Amino acid sequence: MPLEYFDLRADHDIYPTRQPDRETWIERQDPVVWSDWSDAAPISRAETEFFDRNGYLVLKGLFEPEEIAALVDTASELRGALAGSDDPTVVTEPDSAAVRTIFRLERTHRLMDRLSRDRRLAGIARFLLGDEVSIHQSRLNYKPGFSGKEFYWHSDFETWHAEDGMPRMRAVSASLLLTDNRAHNGALMLMPGSHKTYVSCQGETPENNFENSLKRQEIGTPSQQSLSDLARMHGIEDAEGPAGTLVLFDCNTIHGSNGNITPQPRSNAFFVYNAVSNALVEPFAAEAPRPDHLAARGTPRPLSLHDGALV
Amino acid sequence: MPLEYFDLRADHDIYPTRQPDRETWIERQDPVVWSDWSDAAPISRAETEFFDRNGYLVLKGLFEPEEIAALVDTASELRGALAGSDDPTVVTEPDSAAVRTIFRLERTHRLMDRLSRDRRLAGIARFLLGDEVSIHQSRLNYKPGFSGKEFYWHSDFETWHAEDGMPRMRAVSASLLLTDNRAHNGALMLMPGSHKTYVSCQGETPENNFENSLKRQEIGTPSQQSLSDLARMHGIEDAEGPAGTLVLFDCNTIHGSNGNITPQPRSNAFFVYNAVSNALVEPFAAEAPRPDHLAARGTPRPLSLHDGALV
Repeated sequence: MPLEYFDLRADHDIYPTRQPDRETWIERQDPVVWSDWSDAAPISRAETEFFDRNGYLVLKGLFEPEEIAALVDTASELRGALAGSDDPTVVTEPDSAAVRTIFRLERTHRLMDRLSRDRRLAGIARFLLGDEVSIHQSRLNYKPGFSGKEFYWHSDFETWHAEDGMPRMRAVSASLLLTDNRAHNGALMLMPGSHKTYVSCQGETPENNFENSLKRQEIGTPSQQSLSDLARMHGIEDAEGPAGTLVLFDCNTIHGSNGNITPQPRSNAFFVYNAVSNALVEPFAAEAPRPDHLAARGTPRPLSLHDGALV
Repeated sequence: MPLEYFDLRADHDIYPTRQPDRETWIERQDPVVWSDWSDAAPISRAETEFFDRNGYLVLKGLFEPEEIAALVDTASELRGALAGSDDPTVVTEPDSAAVRTIFRLERTHRLMDRLSRDRRLAGIARFLLGDEVSIHQSRLNYKPGFSGKEFYWHSDFETWHAEDGMPRMRAVSASLLLTDNRAHNGALMLMPGSHKTYVSCQGETPENNFENSLKRQEIGTPSQQSLSDLARMHGIEDAEGPAGTLVLFDCNTIHGSNGNITPQPRSNAFFVYNAVSNALVEPFAAEAPRPDHLAARGTPRPLSLHDGALV
């Protein structure tokens, strides 16, 4: 682990949060795109600049229909097989036994393992982060029709820093849509440009906060005042697209999603890539780190990329 | 009251609902547009045909900015004045004292009275219904940012028929948007074409059902199977538009709205126009009629239209 991170932890925390008495805004201390663009980059210069400026990117048409069909079938199998499971990697809806999330997705099926290492995801992540990457967290998300619950606004990095000990903003999420996503069935909403500001949140982390925060996050979210200000400054964009659309977003981009009363479920395969040089240390604002399936600890293992079609 | 309605009530109900043992689909027995279009009509032929086919119509630019500004100010005043009120015309959010709905809107303020009789609303209603019109129900709706709750799918007519005794499908709702409405802040969702089918719902009406159904409707809603089928047949459209947009929809169009975690509230002034020949009788599927502020009873008083600007 580079010395700077050790010093950071020992001396002072540049991204303090979960303070009992106040909320503050701190300017981002890290680059968003850690590589210089060149013709060899896996995305265009315009896409790179868009991601840098907005903290997200929506890419369509990267996957073939038969690849998406195979992923959808596999996702359905996995949800069926794990319905009612009490394994900690399986999260259910607040009001029912329906599977909402399956963590460690790449360990559940060979196809999901290949997807996690696919150059179209992990290769872009490697470029954006300017480093080898490992998986910080992965999951299959499923938000049912009729009763899918909302997920409130937050920056992932705030939680990963506070509760997982992720030192710097050098991680990116890749969400591959497995259903058509529209604003009215709970598509991801992002505040473009919000990734340049770190909202240091008020409120100390309760013990085992993750047990509740995965269902309904309350600690580690910006105040309504901050969210109103950020939305007025940046607006809100909906990450809409057909199944097969890839949504990439920076670890500090404020995002959330509404509930969904439409009959149409929302599902995606979700991978968080972290730079291997950004390995986790002790949590910055929690007594104990979250479990390994929420935040992979130990020496990072750089992913070996998978080339070519998934199926 | 025309004899045909008396006969209808006495002999058999062509729109039976709230049956204990089953849900059924019944073909609509009434026209959607009750007038023949001519050059004198307040909407175009294409708009008339759109409404006939889809059961809704979104009209932009009918109101001047200063008219909308005056309505927004008045709405804000009314909500402030009635916050915490226990008057039955005032409904609050399930989880807070914030005003969600104010019924009998036209009686709260001269501007709202003028709006209720404005030719741009009531004149179009008169054309669509081919009759003089009276107000069946009116309200100011306000869905706050961050925590606005969803409103589940339903046909208004099903409730009005069952609980208010509205004989026929000869009523239209007019919603004038007082905030920008987008899918992601809980805009009205409609299933275009669903107004041609009457979903006779399963489940008997509990006593004083309206006390709960205004906050969270459970009785008088189609089954998930029916909603899935209707959505597959018809799709789902979002009634999006800037403040000042007018949304008209038929009494039997299936509609609902999602919750809203964005900071942006959603508000509208809402008037239900009923043909005076379609006066309420005894409820078709409830022990007692709902209160007068939810469904105006007695001899209908035809509205005298207001011409010209609101302010």
